[in-house]
Amino acid sequence: MTYTPRTLRRALGRDRLRPRSGRPGLLARTPRAPGGRAVSREPARGGGREGAKIPPPAPGDIRIIPLGGVEEIGKNMTLVETSEDILVLDMGFQFKEEDTPGIDYILPNTKYLEERKEKIRAVIITHGHLDHIGGVPYLMPRIGYPPLYTRNLTAIMIKKRQAEFPHLKNLDIRIIEKDDHLKIGALSVSFFNVTHTIPDSMGIVIETSYGLIVNPGDFKLDHVDEVPTASEEEAYRIFDKKKVLLLITDSTNIENPGFSTPESVVHKNLEEIIKNIKGRIIIGTFASQLARMIHIIKIAEKYGKKVVIEGRSMKVNIEVAETSGMLTVKKGTIIPAAEMSAYPPDKIVVLATGAQGEEFAALMRMGTKAHKTVQINNRDTVILSSSIIPGNEKTVEKLKDNLARQGAKIIHYRTSEVYIHSTGHGNRGEIEWLHRRLKPKFFIPIHGNHYRLRLHAELARDLGTPEKNVIVPDNGSIIEITNKGERMTVLKEKAPASPVMVDGFSVGDIQEVVLRDRQMLAEDGMFVIIGSVNTQTGKLKKSPDIISRGFVYLRESQDLLRQTRYIIKKTIEDAARGMNPINFDYVKNQVTDNVSRYLFQQTAKRPIVIPVILGV
Amino acid sequence: MTYTPRTLRRALGRDRLRPRSGRPGLLARTPRAPGGRAVSREPARGGGREGAKIPPPAPGDIRIIPLGGVEEIGKNMTLVETSEDILVLDMGFQFKEEDTPGIDYILPNTKYLEERKEKIRAVIITHGHLDHIGGVPYLMPRIGYPPLYTRNLTAIMIKKRQAEFPHLKNLDIRIIEKDDHLKIGALSVSFFNVTHTIPDSMGIVIETSYGLIVNPGDFKLDHVDEVPTASEEEAYRIFDKKKVLLLITDSTNIENPGFSTPESVVHKNLEEIIKNIKGRIIIGTFASQLARMIHIIKIAEKYGKKVVIEGRSMKVNIEVAETSGMLTVKKGTIIPAAEMSAYPPDKIVVLATGAQGEEFAALMRMGTKAHKTVQINNRDTVILSSSIIPGNEKTVEKLKDNLARQGAKIIHYRTSEVYIHSTGHGNRGEIEWLHRRLKPKFFIPIHGNHYRLRLHAELARDLGTPEKNVIVPDNGSIIEITNKGERMTVLKEKAPASPVMVDGFSVGDIQEVVLRDRQMLAEDGMFVIIGSVNTQTGKLKKSPDIISRGFVYLRESQDLLRQTRYIIKKTIEDAARGMNPINFDYVKNQVTDNVSRYLFQQTAKRPIVIPVILGV
Repeated sequence: MTYTPRTLRRALGRDRLRPRSGRPGLLARTPRAPGGRAVSREPARGGGREGAKIPPPAPGDIRIIPLGGVEEIGKNMTLVETSEDILVLDMGFQFKEEDTPGIDYILPNTKYLEERKEKIRAVIITHGHLDHIGGVPYLMPRIGYPPLYTRNLTAIMIKKRQAEFPHLKNLDIRIIEKDDHLKIGALSVSFFNVTHTIPDSMGIVIETSYGLIVNPGDFKLDHVDEVPTASEEEAYRIFDKKKVLLLITDSTNIENPGFSTPESVVHKNLEEIIKNIKGRIIIGTFASQLARMIHIIKIAEKYGKKVVIEGRSMKVNIEVAETSGMLTVKKGTIIPAAEMSAYPPDKIVVLATGAQGEEFAALMRMGTKAHKTVQINNRDTVILSSSIIPGNEKTVEKLKDNLARQGAKIIHYRTSEVYIHSTGHGNRGEIEWLHRRLKPKFFIPIHGNHYRLRLHAELARDLGTPEKNVIVPDNGSIIEITNKGERMTVLKEKAPASPVMVDGFSVGDIQEVVLRDRQMLAEDGMFVIIGSVNTQTGKLKKSPDIISRGFVYLRESQDLLRQTRYIIKKTIEDAARGMNPINFDYVKNQVTDNVSRYLFQQTAKRPIVIPVILGV
Repeated sequence: MTYTPRTLRRALGRDRLRPRSGRPGLLARTPRAPGGRAVSREPARGGGREGAKIPPPAPGDIRIIPLGGVEEIGKNMTLVETSEDILVLDMGFQFKEEDTPGIDYILPNTKYLEERKEKIRAVIITHGHLDHIGGVPYLMPRIGYPPLYTRNLTAIMIKKRQAEFPHLKNLDIRIIEKDDHLKIGALSVSFFNVTHTIPDSMGIVIETSYGLIVNPGDFKLDHVDEVPTASEEEAYRIFDKKKVLLLITDSTNIENPGFSTPESVVHKNLEEIIKNIKGRIIIGTFASQLARMIHIIKIAEKYGKKVVIEGRSMKVNIEVAETSGMLTVKKGTIIPAAEMSAYPPDKIVVLATGAQGEEFAALMRMGTKAHKTVQINNRDTVILSSSIIPGNEKTVEKLKDNLARQGAKIIHYRTSEVYIHSTGHGNRGEIEWLHRRLKPKFFIPIHGNHYRLRLHAELARDLGTPEKNVIVPDNGSIIEITNKGERMTVLKEKAPASPVMVDGFSVGDIQEVVLRDRQMLAEDGMFVIIGSVNTQTGKLKKSPDIISRGFVYLRESQDLLRQTRYIIKKTIEDAARGMNPINFDYVKNQVTDNVSRYLFQQTAKRPIVIPVILGV
């Protein structure tokens, strides 16, 4: 037999050598991990003193702590600390993982900052994507609402999100521009324009006596045949004749060779499509691809077409683009979906969310005929102008199946003969260009899981940065530049870095046991037993009640239930016989063991068995 | 705020407009779908008469029913029926999907066959992969153990698996060879050799008075610069001057342009790696890549290296290869892991399972330092010689992170500069070659989700097959070739095709409600309330008991529990006041509503709330 992870786990009995302990509900106790203490999600690496006990950097020294985004792609947040000041760069979140069922978002751990609130001079946000701004409403209250510096569009996006959290204090947002030079605390900070998929993306430059600290945020290069355009050259000219002490930069696409496709190529191809394809055109992309959406609307206008926006996040972002002045369209170019039928299909471009196959997004509703205003037919062409986020492959397949079933022609990024999507992150070639352009003395790769950071570190070394001047961090690594900018080391101590989870209204260090219970419930369901025992005789007052969900279909399992009731009755009465007073814990353990074993024998499933024994 | 599918669902309240109904456990009732009946997973398409009522094809007509594998990749099974006989081609299964938590496997629906057992003359299996043989132990008993025809290696693999199901009857396996011609029932059947990633793969040819029905199974072409090799040409020579009535074939790689990389190129590159790389080499691949594993072992032997096999499925398959005579190695080439330290690292090649990042497979255990005998160090090179199965992207990332953290150098298929893996399925170029070579009159695409089948149908039409001679099927579509082989139509009726699920020992049509409960439990957990009411006074005897799992961490939620207990008490006593006898259903509904609402207000979570009210 070939084992699946699941059958293998069963065969090995790993973590399951004895039946799952079902504990009584009387005190609503929640079980703890084997070994008696709750499991921390914090990896065991590093250790030593934590948080508050770590003294500040010595005067002249610079401390860098990536609090998120270096063991995953997402929840980007890095802090720069001197003896006087702390600057926080970005404040992102991450979406849930397969092993965090039910969780809404995962946030960086800000404990280190919470203990040093008074030193935090600013939060600086490079651009308006959720992996850079998603943490703002959750984390700002924890760190005392320091001033937030960012460019106009990003500021509008942050405010728009903040409005969904009306109980929060107002943010102190200070809008800056790419050419601004600021004094924040004792630090001089400036900015530069970078190319990304959302306008107003910027890099951050912090001046120190030993040279610049540079974090370009998410960047790619606009280029022609791998030669950056004049405007890119212009933006990076600020580094001419400057000494770069430390580069901290994005590793997302380090595995992709060469340069990424310039967005201008994508724009040109989309223009050809919008100009030439007959029938209605429905374009699915990320709401975060704001630059592209703006461009599509302008093209549509150029060819006299009407644009329908479908999907809430897309509507919000287009609104933001209009508010910011980034998008100006003639009145009547953007029309409500309900008016679509007043125009011939050739004149309609629909911009829609859901290119990842999200269950309730506009495109999927069109695919399942559940969309109120857009019914797909065989004259429609659907353009999926986005890559597939890892983990979404199957839902994207389902989306394509559903749309194809309605007769739509589909042009998908992955298989299109022309480029209709491009990544927002520079490929290896662009990353290499940045290293060569900045020639940093020290280098810390960020924005990526461990393996990507390692590849990025190798690249830096291949390009001439000495091995000792490159550090691959973990979340919470405390890195210091000391000896008047001559040395970079990582401390033995780590800042707290266990992920903080948003689970409904609860924001915090969700207990591993809750997640593990969810995983077990998802696999095998639950089985609650309620029995009333006569405390005098040790006999059951009546047949025990059973509540089960997610285990087997009970309606068709009457024999199993009957047998299980018999086992429960016998177990309780055997265990309680002659006991006075009855040791309920003992009886419950017996019931759990016997019922778990029996259910597993009969069904090969291991529901969480919980006995409730009431003495009457 | 940007909505995730989850927060959106919450905001919309879809399916959740009222609190989840918590039903009493007294009779262990399981809730049904909204609307009062259990939801069937059968799509609403088609319809009409089902199963038993459909008369057999008229004499001379030929019926084709794909029972699986045409709305998904996996669970391949197609039947060919005449007025006298039924042949079943392949009998695969599929692994669970995201929306089928806790399920082990998904099988094709065999109801149509069960009702016509006496007509089934044979099950013919094209090769030994699980999407072609996985259903055998589950489905053969249902269709009356007809004779199973296949080649030697496949037969050994099927027997090996069957041994894990000792309660089953022996299979009647008849080993055939590629050049055999058989009479099965009234049908003449022959075979031809195809190239795939497992030896003994074959195509099936069924002769009819109107021409051949051809199903090549999973195939690719061995080729040099897109010119098939002489041995491929030889294998397909059987079609020279033959009329192909119907081609039924694989659509897996229809989206990939050109020809796939020949396995010989992969072999050459792996030989270079094994020959030249210093230190220990650990190669992760699928256990199903048997041809490649055999080749690697032979290369290792050629260069005087020892081979360690790690992972149960790989050991089993290597054993099968030796039993079948496909692999002969000198004694001492394959050594147990425990003897590895007796040889210099340069002399060791480890073949390991787990290149998909499976939690308990050999490679992941090496990555997490949990492997008994293989400790990774910075002189090791890990070769991931496999593609990433859609859905496994994140676990593969984790695997690479873990291995990189131990210091291993990693060469991964996706980013390697040389080809170290190749697909087992022909790309579009090879599929096109097959169509041109066979020139079928009729065509049915199989092995793929709907979108892929459509693309394959388009290709066939582009190559000249008339539109009316191409049918894109669904699982259960009944397709008939009538009018002396002149016409192909699809009936209005469908064969039953709802997927059959393996859930522990239960094999059948698992109720949607069980899966939905598992999904809800995974998101928000459960909340069981136990209250004892004095039937005379309507008062609670004591504070109610609460059992909760997977909801919130109760230890830190004492306030919430206290408030909830208060609400329960008040709800029960208000509802029961003056009632005689107490209407328990009414009281329970009140409790469910009030508690669900309160918990949602406080936590934004919606656990399944189940009240148990005992009258005492």
